[in-house]
Amino acid sequence: MSLLIKNGRIITATDAYVADILVEGETIRAIGKDLPFSADETIDATDLLVFPGGIDPHVHLDMPFMGTFSSDTHETGTRAALHGGTTTVIDFVLQKQGHSLKEALADWNSRARGTAVGDYSFHMAVTDFNENTRAEIKEMIENEGVTSFKTFMAYKGALMIDDRQMVALMQEVKKQGGMVTVHATNGDVIDYLVAKHRAEGKLAPLYHYLSQPEMTEAEASGRFADMADYTGCPAYIVHLTCEGALNSVRNATRRNQKLFVETCIQYLILDASLYEDDFEGAKWVMSPPLREKKDQTTLWAGINQGLVQVVATDHCPFRWEQKLMGKDDFSKIPNGHPAIENRMELLYSEGVHTGKITLNKYVEVACTNPAKIFGLFPKKGTIAVGSDADLVLFNPTEKHTISAKTHHMHVDYSAYEGWEITGKVKTVLLRGKVAIDQGNCLVEKGYGKFIKRNKVSGTI
Amino acid sequence: MSLLIKNGRIITATDAYVADILVEGETIRAIGKDLPFSADETIDATDLLVFPGGIDPHVHLDMPFMGTFSSDTHETGTRAALHGGTTTVIDFVLQKQGHSLKEALADWNSRARGTAVGDYSFHMAVTDFNENTRAEIKEMIENEGVTSFKTFMAYKGALMIDDRQMVALMQEVKKQGGMVTVHATNGDVIDYLVAKHRAEGKLAPLYHYLSQPEMTEAEASGRFADMADYTGCPAYIVHLTCEGALNSVRNATRRNQKLFVETCIQYLILDASLYEDDFEGAKWVMSPPLREKKDQTTLWAGINQGLVQVVATDHCPFRWEQKLMGKDDFSKIPNGHPAIENRMELLYSEGVHTGKITLNKYVEVACTNPAKIFGLFPKKGTIAVGSDADLVLFNPTEKHTISAKTHHMHVDYSAYEGWEITGKVKTVLLRGKVAIDQGNCLVEKGYGKFIKRNKVSGTI
Amino acid sequence: MSLLIKNGRIITATDAYVADILVEGETIRAIGKDLPFSADETIDATDLLVFPGGIDPHVHLDMPFMGTFSSDTHETGTRAALHGGTTTVIDFVLQKQGHSLKEALADWNSRARGTAVGDYSFHMAVTDFNENTRAEIKEMIENEGVTSFKTFMAYKGALMIDDRQMVALMQEVKKQGGMVTVHATNGDVIDYLVAKHRAEGKLAPLYHYLSQPEMTEAEASGRFADMADYTGCPAYIVHLTCEGALNSVRNATRRNQKLFVETCIQYLILDASLYEDDFEGAKWVMSPPLREKKDQTTLWAGINQGLVQVVATDHCPFRWEQKLMGKDDFSKIPNGHPAIENRMELLYSEGVHTGKITLNKYVEVACTNPAKIFGLFPKKGTIAVGSDADLVLFNPTEKHTISAKTHHMHVDYSAYEGWEITGKVKTVLLRGKVAIDQGNCLVEKGYGKFIKRNKVSGTI
Amino acid sequence: MSLLIKNGRIITATDAYVADILVEGETIRAIGKDLPFSADETIDATDLLVFPGGIDPHVHLDMPFMGTFSSDTHETGTRAALHGGTTTVIDFVLQKQGHSLKEALADWNSRARGTAVGDYSFHMAVTDFNENTRAEIKEMIENEGVTSFKTFMAYKGALMIDDRQMVALMQEVKKQGGMVTVHATNGDVIDYLVAKHRAEGKLAPLYHYLSQPEMTEAEASGRFADMADYTGCPAYIVHLTCEGALNSVRNATRRNQKLFVETCIQYLILDASLYEDDFEGAKWVMSPPLREKKDQTTLWAGINQGLVQVVATDHCPFRWEQKLMGKDDFSKIPNGHPAIENRMELLYSEGVHTGKITLNKYVEVACTNPAKIFGLFPKKGTIAVGSDADLVLFNPTEKHTISAKTHHMHVDYSAYEGWEITGKVKTVLLRGKVAIDQGNCLVEKGYGKFIKRNKVSGTI
Ligand SMILES: [Zn+2]
Ligand SMILES: [Zn+2]
Ligand SMILES: [Zn+2]
Ligand SMILES: [Zn+2]
Ligand SMILES: [Zn+2]
Ligand SMILES: [Zn+2]
Ligand SMILES: [Zn+2]
Ligand SMILES: [Zn+2]
Repeated sequence: MSLLIKNGRIITATDAYVADILVEGETIRAIGKDLPFSADETIDATDLLVFPGGIDPHVHLDMPFMGTFSSDTHETGTRAALHGGTTTVIDFVLQKQGHSLKEALADWNSRARGTAVGDYSFHMAVTDFNENTRAEIKEMIENEGVTSFKTFMAYKGALMIDDRQMVALMQEVKKQGGMVTVHATNGDVIDYLVAKHRAEGKLAPLYHYLSQPEMTEAEASGRFADMADYTGCPAYIVHLTCEGALNSVRNATRRNQKLFVETCIQYLILDASLYEDDFEGAKWVMSPPLREKKDQTTLWAGINQGLVQVVATDHCPFRWEQKLMGKDDFSKIPNGHPAIENRMELLYSEGVHTGKITLNKYVEVACTNPAKIFGLFPKKGTIAVGSDADLVLFNPTEKHTISAKTHHMHVDYSAYEGWEITGKVKTVLLRGKVAIDQGNCLVEKGYGKFIKRNKVSGTI
Repeated sequence: MSLLIKNGRIITATDAYVADILVEGETIRAIGKDLPFSADETIDATDLLVFPGGIDPHVHLDMPFMGTFSSDTHETGTRAALHGGTTTVIDFVLQKQGHSLKEALADWNSRARGTAVGDYSFHMAVTDFNENTRAEIKEMIENEGVTSFKTFMAYKGALMIDDRQMVALMQEVKKQGGMVTVHATNGDVIDYLVAKHRAEGKLAPLYHYLSQPEMTEAEASGRFADMADYTGCPAYIVHLTCEGALNSVRNATRRNQKLFVETCIQYLILDASLYEDDFEGAKWVMSPPLREKKDQTTLWAGINQGLVQVVATDHCPFRWEQKLMGKDDFSKIPNGHPAIENRMELLYSEGVHTGKITLNKYVEVACTNPAKIFGLFPKKGTIAVGSDADLVLFNPTEKHTISAKTHHMHVDYSAYEGWEITGKVKTVLLRGKVAIDQGNCLVEKGYGKFIKRNKVSGTI
Repeated sequence: MSLLIKNGRIITATDAYVADILVEGETIRAIGKDLPFSADETIDATDLLVFPGGIDPHVHLDMPFMGTFSSDTHETGTRAALHGGTTTVIDFVLQKQGHSLKEALADWNSRARGTAVGDYSFHMAVTDFNENTRAEIKEMIENEGVTSFKTFMAYKGALMIDDRQMVALMQEVKKQGGMVTVHATNGDVIDYLVAKHRAEGKLAPLYHYLSQPEMTEAEASGRFADMADYTGCPAYIVHLTCEGALNSVRNATRRNQKLFVETCIQYLILDASLYEDDFEGAKWVMSPPLREKKDQTTLWAGINQGLVQVVATDHCPFRWEQKLMGKDDFSKIPNGHPAIENRMELLYSEGVHTGKITLNKYVEVACTNPAKIFGLFPKKGTIAVGSDADLVLFNPTEKHTISAKTHHMHVDYSAYEGWEITGKVKTVLLRGKVAIDQGNCLVEKGYGKFIKRNKVSGTI
Repeated sequence: MSLLIKNGRIITATDAYVADILVEGETIRAIGKDLPFSADETIDATDLLVFPGGIDPHVHLDMPFMGTFSSDTHETGTRAALHGGTTTVIDFVLQKQGHSLKEALADWNSRARGTAVGDYSFHMAVTDFNENTRAEIKEMIENEGVTSFKTFMAYKGALMIDDRQMVALMQEVKKQGGMVTVHATNGDVIDYLVAKHRAEGKLAPLYHYLSQPEMTEAEASGRFADMADYTGCPAYIVHLTCEGALNSVRNATRRNQKLFVETCIQYLILDASLYEDDFEGAKWVMSPPLREKKDQTTLWAGINQGLVQVVATDHCPFRWEQKLMGKDDFSKIPNGHPAIENRMELLYSEGVHTGKITLNKYVEVACTNPAKIFGLFPKKGTIAVGSDADLVLFNPTEKHTISAKTHHMHVDYSAYEGWEITGKVKTVLLRGKVAIDQGNCLVEKGYGKFIKRNKVSGTI
């Protein structure tokens, strides 16, 4: 089976040029001008941009959390991702305290295998690091292709590990060739503020925001950087949101440290004023919360400074009825928002179209860096000979409007309802197959494959 | 005329994969596996790396300086560059105080046109910014393809401009779509220390080093950053050498500023202990001088942090008889050292081979970033369909030794004499033509073209 | 002649207690409860605070500047100072370029000797540092009691020295036991902005402010710190006004450097919104200009952090007719404002009364630190046995209003017109003599003595 | 009862002058030249310095710790302190987890009351902050005169509180007018490293040092600063030892924060090379451990920068037989070293005599600041009319040698054995009574009084 994409403007993290792409089977065989191949199928990409399939390295699908499950399954979530130009996601397996990593992985496999429409991989969230867990790290990396280990500095009693476990984990992960990633906020301080606000009868979503002040993230980011520097372990901060936290990373550069930093699309374009309106703010109850305009400015700058390498989503959708669990108490609102389908288009429209970032930078942070940092490269994350033919044909000038009425995520509201967007995903290929075309999904449940990842390092 | 390069491992700033490259005329037409093209010529690149032609954005060829001329002409310099895998250089035109930019450009053209073997472009060093000069900026950018304007914060009375001129220049250059680059050291303090050392009879090359303490560079880099931040002008620091100066750049990130930073190969791998041996140290009398081990560590870190984007040479060779002008007085030693031929191999050997940087980062700092930052991209700096077929076939395992006996630069010593190198340039293509093969130069004087550059911006 | 001050609450930089003070002749002989001395005169200080006489280390009296003279002579200026509780001032002698320090000192002596009402000393402003000047430094320090050397990084062609001279001066001053002080703003950048604004027809006082952006001071303060660190010379920044500049000092603490920092009362309590009203803003045309609210916050914090040691005035008054010289061109408005009389009361009311600083800190920054830093201590700056009986009896609760109608400075407007103040100077002693009582000056022109100062160091 | 001290050179944090001091009863009545009082007793202090009695705000007397008690009781400890010129100490009461502050205070009272020879006060170490504890804070401050609350970020399971408790405590303490102090090291990381070293059979004292790397203190100091900034609570870091931690404080100055910082004499003058010699290093097993030469440099600089306000001891002596508890396992060595007697003389000899700090600074950090910060002022900490006559007559030129053979602490080794000291305590007065004279203690067990302390604030 071969496919020829003609005359698209190919964009990688480095390059931008018009050429044809010949896909054979699942991968790219050739790129060139007027390629003299005859193909089974031809797509005319004139006037379109061709991006590598987006990679969202931070999603939570079908995840048990706060007494419910995030509302997108691996099926609905990866399908929505494909609609939005994201061909691969990295989902989080959560170890249960007192249980093994292997059990957790089996649990997630049972939900994802045969279900996913798009490709996926797993991070392993280590919530109970002990000698048994230590022994599993090597196996995860070498046999299971799970090479990144997520840690939580918050959610004490559920997901949080303490600094003792953190340093111990880092030393083992470094030894085995993996990476430690972190949700870096000071869980103790947040727990205190949540309890305090509740005790004072301050129960609206606004108090979710006020319970996680910038300091809680700046502090924990700096502490994590310190431990990473001490151990020398490759390290990655997920969903960094604010100036204080990025300054912790900037400070760390003075001791010649390299950290990887991810932000999410919402922190670049939404702000905390959304919490002001009563319970409506529940739509954006996530952790960390949305921040201020100044923080948006810092994050865009961080991307251009090379200090923020990834733009993800932390997609963790809950339907309105689920959000209503916290109607009378913000601390019971399931944390998270839907964005897996919107990331690529929003980042293009708000980043590239406005001139904040270049096209190459766009691909770098949305496709290539996630792949390189997490060991999916060169299979995923770029447009190159031999790589998977995961491709997005994108009309950079088409305008449209985001709405829950038209999105494909399994959630009955949109966090971006009514946003007018410039730039639209037209066709998406996943491993050589047209997965999305003109808004229709052409691949089945189960088409998505689990992707084992390679060992990683602290530099890319 | 077509040429097929078979089975090389193609390395760009983003990618790494094995494929064939079809060159037609001067540019790349296609890249792929088993390309079904018949070509006039075929080169087997099995087991070789294929890099984009190196770009050295900081060289001084045939330049009048300190009463003599740098000893490489555009012919010998670009030919030596080609031998070392650098296919394009950016040379510095120096405005004479009291004269126009146009006159200077004509002067440089008269020496370079018809002479160069490899491709070249020009920076314009503005040494006398006034209303007449201001009027020339637009013309330089729009008509002459000279889009970067070099400034000196040192060499008072000769090249230096003061901060008044700097800010004024920045405002004009920003308006016209160019970039200001800088030799950032505090000329006044250096002049004072030079005079002081001479007055005290301290005349050996060591005192060249001691006359340019780290502070002089840290200060000026910070001051330049302040002015660039104030004006918003795209800005680039040439030959940054030390921790203090990089910390000035790191501090600037806190106000969300983006600066481009170049270091040079010598600052990454040589240190100031070379000045200790009597007049022998004259070989490395350059400005800024070599620094300490700690500074090397910082610069390698800076590259991986994304804060240092370019590795150049500041190639400015002088023959030993010229260096002897300063036999009795370090301040009369012509400043500069030969490196144009060695950069790509040294950076590979000391950077990639030792594991300090990745292959992609290597190409990024030695080829791609110089092209992007200075408006040569996508014609130069990458391996992509439509780009110039400037290609380096490189044997990553071949060992050899650097020596003045074998190098091609017009200078009778090597700054790296006896260095054992892993990795060797085998074949070099320039615009589709084999320019170097197995140590032989196959193109003539005059083959090198002047490359007009595009407008630039503060982000890439 | 003896004098007994009964029952005052004595405040020093360290202490606070109620006691009697016995003055004999010019100095303090004893302090205690119920002192059993009979004195020629007794003053009841019950319910009053007793401060050391204020020391204003930054005033410009009878100074030729911008084609006119500052409007307070040594007579009117020191008399007004006494009214406001300042018993000693340090005035600036300005070297004329091409002339010696000695000539300048003689010139200032000719105006001040026999004229001053209060005590005074001199800083020497070095505007032309050369070998002749170098030879005079030692003499100034050892014979003339002039131990601090003021430098200007602005006012090119008039007062400014370049960095070459700065480093050379620092090395000599360090050797001789003196201190270098600095007006730290980037003169070149300011000159450029002034010229630019004028060329654009932007001539109102507001453009004085806009010609001296925060960056010009932050940069120069950092550069001065760098040179002081390099040379090891005791160093002092006069009239620091803004966050950027204080952050330069804070950065310098990381390399274990100690710098002395002075701010002025106006930068603590006035802000740049005063420039908005047309020519009225000329009243506050001074250099550096007033800044923002955030800068006030930083300066108060800097005092409490111990990083700002002195609050002075930069008193440099001009009558309205003089200010009118710049009616059509802000660059012709004589720079400076009158404050010598208001500093102690304003700082008490806005600093102590509001709770921003403690009483001890008040005395420290307004009296003691200026004396210690500049070698007037222990003769001046404290209340201690053996020290000069320079004392201020102060009613901390009395309210009054500042007005040009009632002030004693030779200037026909007040920069603080209508300010309501809590706390009032009641009685002032200078060297044991009641100089001010209930608003009347009881000492004559010529009573003020020139005070030779001691050698100084970088720590106090 | 009156006492006249004639002709001493009186040194306060501000002043230095020769005068007589008249003591009446327990306090100072007058200071002056040739005081015309007849006194019951006269002491000739000619050629001696007269300091305020030293205040050591960080001592552990008779404290249960690691299965034993620190070896100085309130009797032996305060007597030794007096011998060394320290007239008041602040000892730490330790709350037992699960018990009240009141119980702990009663416990400590039972050991200290009637036992102490010198004056003392208490910090309250809060090890279990809950609603019951919260209710006690106000009482401690208002009724018991215990206004500072010590927290431990290390010693998990014994003394450590988590950040949740820390923030809650800070909010309450701020409200009631107290201060929170902290042992700022990352307990989790240290626990991990201790366990790791033990598991690896690394059991020598050297591993105590290697289990507490600089990072553990830098991190925790920054985290504490963040929480103090968030809550606005007056805050004090005890025993800060290193550059990393002081840089955390320096960083905090950028947000206009004021923190109080204490270092201890040992960190200024000893370094980690002492751990290299086998079990001998146990003498200096304390937490944090001794650091590097660079850290000493930073701490001296910090004192002169005004960023380090106090020099204490963390006196916590253990006899050699107690230290031997850890003969085979560094983690069982009781932490602490004896210094209460040596602080004043060591700081004079190594600080003042070498020229690192001035005499005034000496008194400031050793006497006055501890008193001011902790609410003992003006009763303690200065030489002023009305203050307690706690005085040290000191011969600044007398040389002597420290030895366990001659010291008065109840410990059979000296951490400074053989150190040659310049400057010696000759006579010590406590509340008007000669307590020490020529090496003899003239006051009895029980003479020492508990001193209630005043409310405090974040500025002094
Ligand atoms: Zn998270
Ligand atoms: Zn998440
Ligand atoms: Zn240069
Ligand atoms: Zn150069
Ligand atoms: Zn000035
Ligand atoms: Zn002035
Ligand atoms: Zn402790
Ligand atoms: Zn302690």
